Amino acid sequence: MKKEIKFSLVYRDMWQSSGKYQPRVDQLERIAPLIIEMGCFARVETNGGAFEQVNLLYGENPNKAVRAFTQPFREASIQTHMLDRGLNALRMYPVPADVRSLMYKVKHAQGVDITRIFCGLNETRNIIPSIKYALEAGMIPQATLCITYSPVHTVEYYDRIADQLIAAGAPEICLKDMAGVGRPGMLGRLVKTIKEKHPEILIQYHGHSGPGLSMASILEVCENGADIIDVAMEPMSWGKVHPDIISVQAMLKDLGFQVPDINMKAYMKARAMTQEFIDDFLGYFMDTTNKYMSSLLLKCGLPGGMMGSMMADLKGVHSGINMILRSKNEPELSIDDLLVMLFDEVEYVWPKLGYPPLVTPFSQYVKNVALMNLMQLVKGEERWTMIDNHTWDMILGKSGRLPGTLAPEIVELAQSKGYEFVDTDPQLNYPDALDDYRKEMDENGWEYGEDDEELFELAMHDRQYRDYKSGTAKKRFEEELQRAKDASMVKNGYSEEEIKKLKRAKADPIIAPANGQVLWEVSVEGPSTAPFIGCKYQHDSVLCYLSTPWGEYEKVFTGFTGRIVEVCAQQGDNVHKGDVIAYIQRSDIFA
Amino acid sequence: MKKEIKFSLVYRDMWQSSGKYQPRVDQLERIAPLIIEMGCFARVETNGGAFEQVNLLYGENPNKAVRAFTQPFREASIQTHMLDRGLNALRMYPVPADVRSLMYKVKHAQGVDITRIFCGLNETRNIIPSIKYALEAGMIPQATLCITYSPVHTVEYYDRIADQLIAAGAPEICLKDMAGVGRPGMLGRLVKTIKEKHPEILIQYHGHSGPGLSMASILEVCENGADIIDVAMEPMSWGKVHPDIISVQAMLKDLGFQVPDINMKAYMKARAMTQEFIDDFLGYFMDTTNKYMSSLLLKCGLPGGMMGSMMADLKGVHSGINMILRSKNEPELSIDDLLVMLFDEVEYVWPKLGYPPLVTPFSQYVKNVALMNLMQLVKGEERWTMIDNHTWDMILGKSGRLPGTLAPEIVELAQSKGYEFVDTDPQLNYPDALDDYRKEMDENGWEYGEDDEELFELAMHDRQYRDYKSGTAKKRFEEELQRAKDASMVKNGYSEEEIKKLKRAKADPIIAPANGQVLWEVSVEGPSTAPFIGCKYQHDSVLCYLSTPWGEYEKVFTGFTGRIVEVCAQQGDNVHKGDVIAYIQRSDIFA
Repeated sequence: MKKEIKFSLVYRDMWQSSGKYQPRVDQLERIAPLIIEMGCFARVETNGGAFEQVNLLYGENPNKAVRAFTQPFREASIQTHMLDRGLNALRMYPVPADVRSLMYKVKHAQGVDITRIFCGLNETRNIIPSIKYALEAGMIPQATLCITYSPVHTVEYYDRIADQLIAAGAPEICLKDMAGVGRPGMLGRLVKTIKEKHPEILIQYHGHSGPGLSMASILEVCENGADIIDVAMEPMSWGKVHPDIISVQAMLKDLGFQVPDINMKAYMKARAMTQEFIDDFLGYFMDTTNKYMSSLLLKCGLPGGMMGSMMADLKGVHSGINMILRSKNEPELSIDDLLVMLFDEVEYVWPKLGYPPLVTPFSQYVKNVALMNLMQLVKGEERWTMIDNHTWDMILGKSGRLPGTLAPEIVELAQSKGYEFVDTDPQLNYPDALDDYRKEMDENGWEYGEDDEELFELAMHDRQYRDYKSGTAKKRFEEELQRAKDASMVKNGYSEEEIKKLKRAKADPIIAPANGQVLWEVSVEGPSTAPFIGCKYQHDSVLCYLSTPWGEYEKVFTGFTGRIVEVCAQQGDNVHKGDVIAYIQRSDIFA
Repeated sequence: MKKEIKFSLVYRDMWQSSGKYQPRVDQLERIAPLIIEMGCFARVETNGGAFEQVNLLYGENPNKAVRAFTQPFREASIQTHMLDRGLNALRMYPVPADVRSLMYKVKHAQGVDITRIFCGLNETRNIIPSIKYALEAGMIPQATLCITYSPVHTVEYYDRIADQLIAAGAPEICLKDMAGVGRPGMLGRLVKTIKEKHPEILIQYHGHSGPGLSMASILEVCENGADIIDVAMEPMSWGKVHPDIISVQAMLKDLGFQVPDINMKAYMKARAMTQEFIDDFLGYFMDTTNKYMSSLLLKCGLPGGMMGSMMADLKGVHSGINMILRSKNEPELSIDDLLVMLFDEVEYVWPKLGYPPLVTPFSQYVKNVALMNLMQLVKGEERWTMIDNHTWDMILGKSGRLPGTLAPEIVELAQSKGYEFVDTDPQLNYPDALDDYRKEMDENGWEYGEDDEELFELAMHDRQYRDYKSGTAKKRFEEELQRAKDASMVKNGYSEEEIKKLKRAKADPIIAPANGQVLWEVSVEGPSTAPFIGCKYQHDSVLCYLSTPWGEYEKVFTGFTGRIVEVCAQQGDNVHKGDVIAYIQRSDIFA
């Protein structure tokens, strides 16, 4: 009998790799007991990455969600873990040291046991402080090697980094194979090398299935000493996401490893409930191509989780590119042609940019440069003329040291623009900021929250937090959801007229009680306009006023609790008694 | 440096696993040079399985297709191989010995180098005669182990069969992992066991990617001595089909095996051309769920290639089952619920039926029994009451010996029906038949064809061959294609009225030159009716006759070459001068 292998269900990453949103807190509370009932998980990934920010985006409080989701696992002695981006913590750009430090205290208080700390450049200066902050806060820091495939990303390269991270106090190492391009043989050799020197260090493998190597990689890392494997489950396993626990368990069991059994009845219940979440609202923001694997991903090395946004980019530029081509009498390109060209351009661009590992945010930078180059080339213009400031910061060393060497043409370009290369600790460019955020909270009369979690949230995602507090986030999300639902119905063959009819059929009309001019409630912030779609009214709310011909302002009540699905009269419109002013769907039946 | 590993592109199976049809001969002729240009294939699977039958089904001659497709590979020194089902040869039920024997002569003459001979029961009595026939005809017989996963399908079980097949003269062994459920560790141990005893025997691994184990299996079989790996390519790799050459090559190269390089420019051209074939007509008969992997396949062990027909079965019974449930006041089931229940029932049924490997036709038998049981259970009735005759033949031993032991309840059921168990050589139940087919050809004045290939085709697929000869097959296919195209347009949001308009817009109307009664050409076989949709007319064809009020028969000519897309006047209808009788689309623009 070989060694014991444990499993972690990366429930957070399953969603992030599949679409834009994460489940709501009520959904997380319902799924947790089923995940526990499956009986095969030593760990569950609960939050981190985009989780917190996404909660804010749809107008809910991430602190409540994290506390509610981790609690049942803690009670069941299942460890919870989160993903953090080192210097960038939970966002896409650098975070001041005091905010980084506070994060680990907050997340520990919220019930998260382990934090997986990565830097997209594998820059140890960006990771090591987080190891120390996490230890101080009582969390387990799992230091990460972002796996990619290039001439500079050798076993020796990764081993050297692992040594530094372990020396800094990390008791665990994660191999984060976010694009699934790590070659199984190389990964096995890497695990063996680390384990021989550091047998006490726990190694967790995280791989995506996009280009199809992940199962062979799991086999090799386990044969060479890995301890924990990240897995997914239906309906979100495979495709460009992660391998399914069922297959991983079956393979390892046959190879003689000690693995837990899966309670399949619980698996099927969790599968059905997750599908229910997809059908509820999350599925409207998922791209079906996530379900497709493609070996072409090996060629460019981009993470599968990026395909959704990349396809959206390509759809955005598609007609523009074809317009240019038509004007030049050249044949038009399909989206698939463009995708292949973009893959080729990434392959061309990446070495010249010094092989930054293709992970957030550097995968986006490389993809953006490639996309801009592609656009320029189609126009018959030069490459490299459209590099944004974030990417320049990476090139110039402001995010840390690049693994490879910049191409001479890039160095020359930087010099010609008068840019300066730096090698300072990236953190030094971002001074402490908590006091400013404390001041903002005080001025607004906002509570710092349990364990300062609200202060942390503002400091980490200030813009999104403000929109959350003002209600703008919720409003924007409701509108986005309605648009996505409408688009889905159009796709399913409904005309816009039919959709309107269907929506009306599910809603109740608010009738004008008299002739008059419609005046929607006055906004203190901007011009008064009709309410947004999805706006909620209580049964005793005033929907609007009618300015009657005899000079009175008559209040129009909704009469029931619900949300606006259609506005029929705009600000200042004249309506007749009996006209429909708006349709409101009762809340109890609103999806 | 480890040993050399060669690759085979299973271009035939890629299509068969993805949908109903195979490319036309003109398409195969165009793709072959690109496959050669890729430079990485030692072998290509050209035909066999359902290939020949499918050609007949759409009204084309499989003999011409096989000759045309194998020739360029032979010239490029790439070996071609086909799949044959042993006793069942190229069909789903047993074939007389003289027809089996003729097949190898014909296929050798048509340019096929290797035949992969399997029996769904791994019954050596069904395989060994084919090894001998193939050797006599000058083909390389590759004897096959159908891989499945059960307590009886151990390394020892397979090793014992391999010994027999090698002793009978097979120079090659294929591990046919048609459901992809073979566990990587077990497959590695099996290859090692065979290679240690028979180092000179060539081992080729064929695996499907449905439940996600295939890449790890390829790694293990290569590490243990396999020689050739079957691969696919985009746009049909992955999902429930096969791993992609790009990923297999990259993995093995990193592990130190000697593998050929891939000409990626040729890959991308072949990929685009294959997509063109899909867009042309093949895609109308492909199920998008083929692109999805599912680890639930491990639980039931069904081959991924069967998912399409299984989903069609389920859609067929779905509304019926829900009607029953509604009548019993029980909650309705989704297609997905039904699929899961069917998987569970297969898991229950399979051991009781003696673990026949889940491959054609036995996978269909097991699935059918499970589906019937499921229906009965929903109705509140007993299991096992709806077993068809083919399945009974398998149970009673008429196809060969079952690997496992039948459940007592099945044995009792057989006895209660007065059925008799047999252990005779299955071939003995099927006397030689070529003389009868010669007689049929003579009576019809049909040519036996080059190397008796037409005689063989009639003997192998008699019903389909007759429909091919009469033109019924072609007609049926054209109608099926038009229905599929219409259905696709409906799905894309077009109404039936819009589809009619679009079709008319692409076609030319045939106008009545006078008042009269429409008489379509008289059929000698059945009642005269309007022509079928897709029926082809030459420019000087008579489309129909008009019986004028003054007693004349006026001929209506088409005036151009094309196919009927809409018939506006049925047999005997009265039309006025200027009315549209039919719409015909000119052939040069007909897809």
